[in-house]
Amino acid sequence: MNWIDLVATLAVLQFIAFGAFVGMARTRYGVHAPAVSGDPMFERNYRVQMNTLELLVALLPALYLAARYWPAPWVAAAGAVYLIGRMLYRQAYLRDPRSRSLGFALSSLPILALLGATLVGIALGR
Amino acid sequence: MNWIDLVATLAVLQFIAFGAFVGMARTRYGVHAPAVSGDPMFERNYRVQMNTLELLVALLPALYLAARYWPAPWVAAAGAVYLIGRMLYRQAYLRDPRSRSLGFALSSLPILALLGATLVGIALGR
Amino acid sequence: MNWIDLVATLAVLQFIAFGAFVGMARTRYGVHAPAVSGDPMFERNYRVQMNTLELLVALLPALYLAARYWPAPWVAAAGAVYLIGRMLYRQAYLRDPRSRSLGFALSSLPILALLGATLVGIALGR
Repeated sequence: MNWIDLVATLAVLQFIAFGAFVGMARTRYGVHAPAVSGDPMFERNYRVQMNTLELLVALLPALYLAARYWPAPWVAAAGAVYLIGRMLYRQAYLRDPRSRSLGFALSSLPILALLGATLVGIALGR
Repeated sequence: MNWIDLVATLAVLQFIAFGAFVGMARTRYGVHAPAVSGDPMFERNYRVQMNTLELLVALLPALYLAARYWPAPWVAAAGAVYLIGRMLYRQAYLRDPRSRSLGFALSSLPILALLGATLVGIALGR
Repeated sequence: MNWIDLVATLAVLQFIAFGAFVGMARTRYGVHAPAVSGDPMFERNYRVQMNTLELLVALLPALYLAARYWPAPWVAAAGAVYLIGRMLYRQAYLRDPRSRSLGFALSSLPILALLGATLVGIALGR
C-alpha cells in the first residue's frame, strides 16, 4: 500500500470535512454568505478551516518532497501525526481558541520536520 | 497531449483570473488594502476567490493522486467538470450568493469522486 | 543539486515564516483568535500571509508543471525571482499597502510565465 498517497488523500478529505463543517455552521449560527463573521462559534469553525488550509498547502508539498529523499514509512508517519494534530486542534479551538497550542504544534512540527529533512536531502544530493 | 497537465494549468489560471477580478473590484468598489470588506459586491468577488482557493488546494492533489491509479482521460474529464462548475459558481455568486449551490456541487463533487477513486486505487494496491 | 526542489521548499518555508509573523503580530497588537481584524498593522501582516497563500498555491504546481516541459535551471530561476518578489512585497506592504505593486509583480509574473510556458509545452506535445 502507498502510505504517503493514503495520508495525502486523508489530509485533503479532512480539510474538505472542515469546510463542510463551516457550511453547516453557516446555517446553525445564521451567518449568510458572503459574511464570514457575526457569530463567535461560526468564526471558530471558519478559522479552523482557514488555518488548516494554510497548513495543508505546506503539508502536501512537504510530504512528496521529503519522500524523494527519505524512506516512505517515516514520511507517512509524520503525515499521520499531522492528521491527529489537526483533529485535536479543531476540538480544542471550538472549545476555547486559547487551548489550540498542542494541536497546532502536533500539526505544524511534522511539516517543519519534513521540510528540514528535505533540505538535508537536497544538500546531500541524495 | 497531456490532458491532466492541461486541466491543472487551466485550473490554476482560472484561480489567478478570479484573483485579478478581486483586484479590479478593489478599485471599482473603493475597498482599499488591507480591508477585505465594506462593499457587498467586493465581498462576493472576494468570497468567490477564497472558495476557489479552498477547492483548488483539494483539486490539484486529487487530480494527480487519481491519475496514479486510474486512466488519465477519466481523471481529466472530472477536472473539466470542475472548471465549468467554478465558472457557474462565480456567475451565480455575483448574481446572488444564495444561488451558488449548483456551481458549488459541480466543482466539489468531481474532487470528492477523484479522492474516493484514489482511496479505492490505494486499497486495491494498483 | 535539485534546484526546483530547493526553490519549492524555500517557498513553503517562506510562507510558514509569514504565518509565524502573523502569530507574533497577534500578541504584539493584541488581536486574539478568532479575530483577524482590529489593528491596522496586524491586518497588514495577515494580508501578506493570505496573499502569499494565494500565490503559493499557484507557484508550486507551476514549478513542477513547467519542469516537465522546460529545462530545470530556467524554471528554478523563475522560482527564485518569486522568492525575492515576496520578500519585497512583505517589506513594502508593512510600510504602506499602496507600495506593494513591485513586489506583487515580481512574485506573480514568474508564476504566469511558468504557466504560459507549460501551456506552450503541452501544445507542442514535448
